[in-house]
Amino acid sequence: MTAAPWTARVLTLFPEMFPGPLGHSLAGRALERDLWRLEARDIRAHALDRHHMVDDTPAGGGPGMVMKPDVIAAAVDAARAGLAAPTLYLSPRGKPLAQDRVRELAEGPGVILLCGRFEGVDQRVIDGRQLEEVSIGDFVLSGGEPAALCLIDAAVRLIPGVMGAAETLAEESFTGDLLEYPHYTRPQEWEGRRVPEVLLSGHHGRIHSWRREEAERLTRERRPDLWSRYLARKGQGMRSPDTHPISVSRKD
Amino acid sequence: MTAAPWTARVLTLFPEMFPGPLGHSLAGRALERDLWRLEARDIRAHALDRHHMVDDTPAGGGPGMVMKPDVIAAAVDAARAGLAAPTLYLSPRGKPLAQDRVRELAEGPGVILLCGRFEGVDQRVIDGRQLEEVSIGDFVLSGGEPAALCLIDAAVRLIPGVMGAAETLAEESFTGDLLEYPHYTRPQEWEGRRVPEVLLSGHHGRIHSWRREEAERLTRERRPDLWSRYLARKGQGMRSPDTHPISVSRKD
Repeated sequence: MTAAPWTARVLTLFPEMFPGPLGHSLAGRALERDLWRLEARDIRAHALDRHHMVDDTPAGGGPGMVMKPDVIAAAVDAARAGLAAPTLYLSPRGKPLAQDRVRELAEGPGVILLCGRFEGVDQRVIDGRQLEEVSIGDFVLSGGEPAALCLIDAAVRLIPGVMGAAETLAEESFTGDLLEYPHYTRPQEWEGRRVPEVLLSGHHGRIHSWRREEAERLTRERRPDLWSRYLARKGQGMRSPDTHPISVSRKD
Repeated sequence: MTAAPWTARVLTLFPEMFPGPLGHSLAGRALERDLWRLEARDIRAHALDRHHMVDDTPAGGGPGMVMKPDVIAAAVDAARAGLAAPTLYLSPRGKPLAQDRVRELAEGPGVILLCGRFEGVDQRVIDGRQLEEVSIGDFVLSGGEPAALCLIDAAVRLIPGVMGAAETLAEESFTGDLLEYPHYTRPQEWEGRRVPEVLLSGHHGRIHSWRREEAERLTRERRPDLWSRYLARKGQGMRSPDTHPISVSRKD
């Protein structure tokens, strides 16, 4: 059995925005190596009338335009043919995207992404086609396309073979519900600022402890929401301190 | 006095990723009309040694590479010459980007954006150059570039003249701490699903009430965090129910 590579199928009014940044660097090289595929499809191809109308005025009045349910449904139905992947609608009303969901998506066959423009899409097609609404943050974009680029970038780097082994080991920003500890490199002194002594000690146990304490401190100070979740999971015994990845190989 | 247009100055190892999606549609047309400017600058131009090295191994060990403080500082200092704008470092450890901050940035002269790669940048340059750490979400990207595209897109659409008047009025997703109500358009019936009767009633007061109730219901169900903030602000009298934008012109 030869499986097709991981596929991102994007429904957009601006297919020319893709691959954009995904054509370069890590994702771009993986695209050339056929480790994943990107298909940007023009929603307008599914417009049913001779004016190729994709939007209309909002029912109940108000400014802006709303994308038509019949056109969006046709685009979604066509995209689902041959790709049994979740269909996500990028919208500031959606569930905040988090690394857990990115990981699930990367482990599946791919993703179908609907990019809205104007005021968004008719609610009936969200309900009727059971679209998963996902938000990348509490800010308003001109359309879903830049958000789609982020989601795809985040997923592609997790596809086996895309990153080297060293890079793979390194990415653990959210898996422990903690923000990452501070990084330092050469020179040891720069503009009167020194790399913390513990990092130069060669004592792996102390280095691990310091990094975990810094990660905990940063999370507590900056993100009380993540900190509460971290404490709750620890309390539930889902992760005891001794098995937390950052504390592995403590020696002190 | 002729002020320069709003300027996004991006520090990146991949300047070829820009303008990317920002060269099209709303942002692209505004770029052509010189309503804003985009300058992608190669960090590598500030590498000091003959190998153009921009990164080095992490102090204390571990996988990945860390961007060097001297190189980043040189790139930041050069970018700040002639542009008195905030310098943001895009990082999952940063403060979550929200529409309030986007609006502030759009009202200023522009923004300098540092895009990290690998494990990020040396902590000393974040401290020493007082970089503002901003996150677009709790997920890990291959680098800051896709996040920078989102931030710029969100800011550019708020620059005067970029959107038409109708579009400007329409965007109020987060200003009231509520998620947007559902949208509908023609046809009135689609696949057995009808536009809610109230929206076809022509009764503006009822339409406003319905939309506010839907916005409140969605926020309560989907985003308890935003809902708490909304209730707190209402309780503080910062916005009484009668002056909330969505309830203006109630008649019932």
